[in-house]
Amino acid sequence: MGGARSGKSEFAERLVESFDSPKTFIATSEISDSEMRSRIEEHRRRRGMEWRTVEAPLDIASALDDLGDEEVAVLDCLTIWLSNLMLSEGETREGVDRLMLALERCRGSVVTVSNEVGQGIVPENPLARRFRDEHGRLNQRFAASCGLVVLVTAGLPLVLKGALPGSPA
Amino acid sequence: MGGARSGKSEFAERLVESFDSPKTFIATSEISDSEMRSRIEEHRRRRGMEWRTVEAPLDIASALDDLGDEEVAVLDCLTIWLSNLMLSEGETREGVDRLMLALERCRGSVVTVSNEVGQGIVPENPLARRFRDEHGRLNQRFAASCGLVVLVTAGLPLVLKGALPGSPA
Amino acid sequence: MGGARSGKSEFAERLVESFDSPKTFIATSEISDSEMRSRIEEHRRRRGMEWRTVEAPLDIASALDDLGDEEVAVLDCLTIWLSNLMLSEGETREGVDRLMLALERCRGSVVTVSNEVGQGIVPENPLARRFRDEHGRLNQRFAASCGLVVLVTAGLPLVLKGALPGSPA
Repeated sequence: MGGARSGKSEFAERLVESFDSPKTFIATSEISDSEMRSRIEEHRRRRGMEWRTVEAPLDIASALDDLGDEEVAVLDCLTIWLSNLMLSEGETREGVDRLMLALERCRGSVVTVSNEVGQGIVPENPLARRFRDEHGRLNQRFAASCGLVVLVTAGLPLVLKGALPGSPA
Repeated sequence: MGGARSGKSEFAERLVESFDSPKTFIATSEISDSEMRSRIEEHRRRRGMEWRTVEAPLDIASALDDLGDEEVAVLDCLTIWLSNLMLSEGETREGVDRLMLALERCRGSVVTVSNEVGQGIVPENPLARRFRDEHGRLNQRFAASCGLVVLVTAGLPLVLKGALPGSPA
Repeated sequence: MGGARSGKSEFAERLVESFDSPKTFIATSEISDSEMRSRIEEHRRRRGMEWRTVEAPLDIASALDDLGDEEVAVLDCLTIWLSNLMLSEGETREGVDRLMLALERCRGSVVTVSNEVGQGIVPENPLARRFRDEHGRLNQRFAASCGLVVLVTAGLPLVLKGALPGSPA
């Protein structure tokens, strides 16, 4: 977890690079504008050729179901996925439940990238307020189900739960 | 302290539940719309019947004065109270000073919930900017006077000052 | 680093006060309105007379080049400087590179104050969004080049990298 441009995606990717396993990148962005397109291309350049990329703007659950036993995935990111879900279905409860179930039964390992979006002033826009609330709840559910939770600030990790691989027990 | 929907209220309530003392919930929300009403009802359901509830949208000081020696209270939350104060009195200095004095002489224990609101982009609205500044200062005064300060992110606590009950010294 | 009114400037100044060295305050604010003027006067009163003050709304690089071997400086703050740079030059790449080089060759020690601005909802304004992204990247570059990085919340420090002077190794 982290704020915008906090280095959280790069941190997640380095974490997965440290494993000697097949690697998958689950991308949630829909390539809708040139700003987004250049970000995605920057992401691809950074990751190199060892990775398989799956585009899943809405159906992350299937992408998780497809992961094999040894596979390690970066899911980047919950924030864009939740936004896609809200715009496409109007509500998020069912989609979120489906995702949490897929996460439970997933055979591979998943490093999930998510934004902290609730530390600014309350937005005036009711939809933004609702998004902020639902995103906060989603982050809580994910954090409860994960073994490791890291807050990234300016590229620096702060472990909120569990321990990073290689750190003393 | 924490962002919106970070799990900070639930964390505060669990902390108070762990004490074997009379429990008070000091609610600062004015029930002005249906969104707020459903949040408050969700809060009540979660707390159960063991709690006394005091509604104090403005006069938290009296609510603190009424706490007995053994009593443990959740004050939820500073952010809404400061917003109520600013809207009702136009300025906050006097109300904040009165609250800090009440906190000093309070005989019970108080677990205070507050938002971090200063980690987004500077708001364009001058009132929001002023609120953000005054809230930041209020958080600093509270943090200085408390024995325990915890930042909650995605439901996970990070101790900024003091130690949680039951943790090693 | 910290949010608005988090106590980060005061923390930086106390850190520098603890050194027995000549002290410089590098101020980035342009005194454009009365709100800003009163903030700056409050800052000056707090620091006292021992400090040299340099106003550098754009050219921090020269201010860093002027620091002597023993000198310790507070640079307050990166956020306002980046905003000044964006407004004055339209882009920031060159100015940021120049600053990073000045930081590398700087003979004194610099304690830099910066805001976390990426933990709210994505701003609707494209310029604010770009600022948020560039600021996040700048914070990452600074954090990578510094020996000590501290996140300040409600006046309380959380060490993200390195160790505070006087803390156990």
